[in-house]
This record gives sequence, structure tokens and C-alpha cells, in this order.
Amino acid sequence: MRGVVLNAPGDVQVVDREDPVVVEQTDAVIRLTATCVCGSDLWPYRGIEDVHGPAVMGHEYVGIVEEVGAEVRTIRPGQFVVGSFFASDNTCEICRAGYQSRCFHSVPIGGIGTQSQYARIPLADGTLVPTPGLPDESLVPSLLAASDVLGTGWFGAVAAEAGPGKTIAVVGDGAVGLLGVLAAKTLGAKRIIAMSRHESRQRLAEEFGATDIVAERGDAGIERVRELTGGLGAHGVIEAVGTQESMMQAIRSTRAGGHVGYVGVSHDVNLPGNELFFSAVHLHGGPAPVRRFLPELIDLVWNRQIDPGKVFDLALPLEDAAEGYRAMDERRAIKTLLRP
Amino acid sequence: MRGVVLNAPGDVQVVDREDPVVVEQTDAVIRLTATCVCGSDLWPYRGIEDVHGPAVMGHEYVGIVEEVGAEVRTIRPGQFVVGSFFASDNTCEICRAGYQSRCFHSVPIGGIGTQSQYARIPLADGTLVPTPGLPDESLVPSLLAASDVLGTGWFGAVAAEAGPGKTIAVVGDGAVGLLGVLAAKTLGAKRIIAMSRHESRQRLAEEFGATDIVAERGDAGIERVRELTGGLGAHGVIEAVGTQESMMQAIRSTRAGGHVGYVGVSHDVNLPGNELFFSAVHLHGGPAPVRRFLPELIDLVWNRQIDPGKVFDLALPLEDAAEGYRAMDERRAIKTLLRP
Repeated sequence: MRGVVLNAPGDVQVVDREDPVVVEQTDAVIRLTATCVCGSDLWPYRGIEDVHGPAVMGHEYVGIVEEVGAEVRTIRPGQFVVGSFFASDNTCEICRAGYQSRCFHSVPIGGIGTQSQYARIPLADGTLVPTPGLPDESLVPSLLAASDVLGTGWFGAVAAEAGPGKTIAVVGDGAVGLLGVLAAKTLGAKRIIAMSRHESRQRLAEEFGATDIVAERGDAGIERVRELTGGLGAHGVIEAVGTQESMMQAIRSTRAGGHVGYVGVSHDVNLPGNELFFSAVHLHGGPAPVRRFLPELIDLVWNRQIDPGKVFDLALPLEDAAEGYRAMDERRAIKTLLRP
Repeated sequence: MRGVVLNAPGDVQVVDREDPVVVEQTDAVIRLTATCVCGSDLWPYRGIEDVHGPAVMGHEYVGIVEEVGAEVRTIRPGQFVVGSFFASDNTCEICRAGYQSRCFHSVPIGGIGTQSQYARIPLADGTLVPTPGLPDESLVPSLLAASDVLGTGWFGAVAAEAGPGKTIAVVGDGAVGLLGVLAAKTLGAKRIIAMSRHESRQRLAEEFGATDIVAERGDAGIERVRELTGGLGAHGVIEAVGTQESMMQAIRSTRAGGHVGYVGVSHDVNLPGNELFFSAVHLHGGPAPVRRFLPELIDLVWNRQIDPGKVFDLALPLEDAAEGYRAMDERRAIKTLLRP
């Protein structure tokens, strides 16, 4: 099969890879209908994370089940499935508490690489969620979004305790931040402040439910959020970047007793204990337990109540993956969908 | 009146101070029945925090209302009252959300100094909670504990989401940690792991409801908590010290998706973002909004359902405050009660 590898920073290539097969009897092999490039793929692409190339890439996926191991009970060949970027048994105590991304037996899908034609998915029964039937082509981008960026933005909104009557601010205007806006809106937030300097992203944020746009960053952005919230700060803030600046912006934009939901993968962040202590905020985040939300998200997409697939503003054949990475790196695209 | 000042690290003195009077019409002046030395008073006493002496000391208090300002509506002279270490209006949006310690108009009582015979309490209606009547002498230590250490331990337990079926670990065996044990027990926790190396404190922890004692610290302590919890970590951990070591011990002893309630005043703490991200814990804490809990805590004490006053293992006249500080500094006493 064909699949993407990153040889070194900036060097994306589509190569022949071995066809995946069932290894553990709890595995499924899926044929990918669509996959995509993640904001987190840009960290190694930009050389900010080490690359030990050639490294397989990709952890977002939707597709058709081709084959299952002997111990797979609920997933069957022919089903259209959505899964998360961590395989999980969905039965251990941590999974049952809703933290499937930290499952006792979790397997990171990034090590398998789903920017490819086929993929082996471990712990198929616990990981994959079938859709009610084969989806219409128009639903595929939104189902793919559920695999990570929607599920991650949703977790950020849940961790920020978005809900009726709440004012929620969102730091970061990438796909996750934008879908954090959509999640906050769907969860009933009254006012949603999107922090973005890019006009096209501001427009999409508004389409997803943002009521206010703050173009300022850093201290000026914090000041603006406080002005918009009677000097108190937002009830909840979704942090969807993962840098020191964005984390401090999120914490300082949250009122005392409010909630920061942080889902940007943390890079060189150090939180000052004293400031955190006196901020009196709740801090929760990490790798989103997307599996917890998948049934609900698939339902919302299937019934066309939400259209998160709009974050894909570029769709390319898998063979053109290199251009897909470049477009995101140069911020010409919010998110690139790849068709295997 | 007489009152405690700290002239320089280690130099506690009882001096003549001006009698307090009503300044703002929302003030009350109280005559202290009892006051005490806080673990946080030891930071400047030990020179870890700067001292600009002579500095007034003390922020815990119970006593009789002597006089109130013209705008005080609910508090009346003659009432026995308990208050917190932050005065709060108890009407602003932050107070109504239960974060009175971060009230928009909060006043730190530490700047007023309650290790004294009288004290001016700002925002009396919002800050002070009267007891049902004049308390029996035997209840005074427990009511005084509610003013800070019980309220703070209680907040730690609430932030750690202590409740039925939960395993809660407690880092720190000072008065706050010990009362965190009592709070977790009262809130229904099934298993309470107290981390302590001191035999007398271990005994009091057990008396307050600890089911397990872990004497190991650092990595060995974390390992022991994980062993006791099937490799997962505790559901919730109360952090009641405020150092880098204790914070990391708390975070690493908590299972993914669990809750760290941190109430030790933070000193030179820096939390590594990457580790925090992948821990997937909830982090919440800060200066405890004791006012939120005071009515419930007074009720529990008044009905003799809890006896938090046991943390006072030394009681001295106010004039002997220096010895009270010394005994705590040398860990001869858990907590010193002072009688003005």
C-alpha cells in the first residue's frame, strides 16, 4: 500500500509500505476512506519535535473494516467506522471513567500511521465506533473531523465547562480552536469569544457560533476578554495551541473559580505555581478522550446538526500529501484532507 | 490592645497596638476569644518569605462582636462569630459562584493581624458567620479551626472530589493535611491514604479517618500509593504543603482523569506542562473560599459531628506567642492556639 512518511523536517514523502495484517486477535484492518494532516503533525514537520525518519505519519481516520481478528466481537467487516488517535480497550477502570486516551492498554495510533491506504487498528471493539450505515460522501469530512479535531475541541469545551449561560473564550484559531467554538455553541454557551487575527478563520469562527472576535494577543488580548466580561474574565477558556504564551493567556483570561480546558499539546510550557494558585482556576486537559464523545458526535454529524467538516479547506489525493503539509505550514490551509 | 508582630525572621514579639475602630461603615470590631498560628506564618518566620517588620501577624479568628458600622445589616454586637482569612462581600458574581477568597472586593485579614485582642473585620455582613448562640468553651478550638485550617482542608477535599467510593490520598501532615483527611472522611471517601512520617500525626490522621498510612516520600511514596490503588493512582489527592516536591508527588499519585486539590500556598513551584498534559488530571486549588463552607462547618462542629480542634496540641496565652511559633517551627506542636 501507499503511505506518508516524514524523512526529516519539511521532507514529506508518499512511499510503498507493507500492507497491514491482523497481528493481535483483537485487531481490525481498515481501508481508509479519508485521512488528514493534524496541527500536531506540524511540530515534527517544523523540526520543533525530533524526527527519527523515515517516520510513518497520521492518526486520524475513517474507513471500511476489511478484516478482524478472532477475538473481535462487535466490529464486523464492511462497517464504516470512526476511531480516535489512541486505541483503548474501553473496559478498564480508566476507560470506564471516560479517559480512554489514558487507557491502561492504550496504543497511540500515530505509531501506526493512518496517512495511508490501510491501517491496523488495535483493540478494535474498544476503539472503533461504527456509523449507522455507509455514509453519504458529504458526511465523510465531518466524520473524519470527529476522529480528532472535533473530539479534541469538544473535550476542551467540556473541560472548560461550556454550557447554558456561560461565556467561553477560545485561544487558538486552528481546526481544534474553531471546533472548540462549535462545541461550546452546541453545548449551549451564551457567549463565545474567539481569539483570532486571521480574517478567514474569524469568519469560520462566527459561522460556528462565535459572538465576539478578539484580534489582540498576549496582555492586550487578556485585557480585551476582561473588558468583555465585566472585568472578571470568561467562565471558561479553551486553550488549543500548547505554548507558554497561549497557556498563560488562557489562565489569565479565566475568572477566579472558572475552568481552563487545555488541549493544545504542551511544548516547553512551565506553569508558575504561585500565579496558578492565586488564579483559583480549574485546570484540566491533556490528550482528548475522543472515544468518550464519539457516539454523540457521530450522531450529531449523521443528523446534520453540526458540520465540523468545514475546517477542511483543502482536499488532496494522498499522493499529494507533501503539498497538504506545506499549505498548513504556511497557513494557506486550516486543515488538509487526504484521499487515499 | 496587645498583639503579635514579627520584627524579623525568628523574632516574634507581643506589643501594644492601637485599639481597632470602625473605619468603613461595613466594618465590625470583634474581641477575639481565640486565635492561632498558621503553617503559612512559618514561611516569613523562617525567612523563606521576606519580612518587612514589624509586621502584624495572624488571620484566623473567632470572637464576640463589639461594634458594627452603620451599614452592617445582619451582624450584631454580642454575637459569637467565625470568619475567614479573606473578607468578602459575599454578593459579587465571584462570591455567588463560591469563590469568596477571590471576591472582587476581598481584603486579606493577614494585613489586619488577628493574633491580637481585638480586630477590625471589613465587610462584616459578607465575611462573618454567627454561631447559633454563645459556644461552650469546649467548642471554641473547633470553631477556630473552621476559620482556616478546617475550611482549607475541606476545600482541598472538595477540589479533590472526595466522596463515596473514592480513594483519596493526602500529601502533607500539618493541620491542613490532617483536616483534609477529616474532610475526605466526612464527605464519604471510602479509603483515605495519609502520607506522613511522624508517629503522632499518623495517629491523629487515623483518628480523623485515614485507612492507610504511607511513610515514604517522593518517588517511593508515589510508588506506594500506586501499589495501594491497583497501579492506577488515587481518584483524588489533597496537596497541603506547597512545594515543588509535594505538588509533583500529588500529581503523580493521581490517576488519569482524577483530581488534585492543592491548598498549600505555592512556593517556587513550576509545573512542567508536558507532564501535566499527559497526566490528564484535574488541577484545582488556591486560597480556600472558606466562607462558602462556613455555615456547614459550623453546623458540623456545633452538633459535635466532627472535632477538628484536636489539631491544636498546644494552647498558650497570647503573651507567649513566641513560644507558640517556636514549637511549630520545631515540629513539637502541630498547631498553637493563642488566648488573648
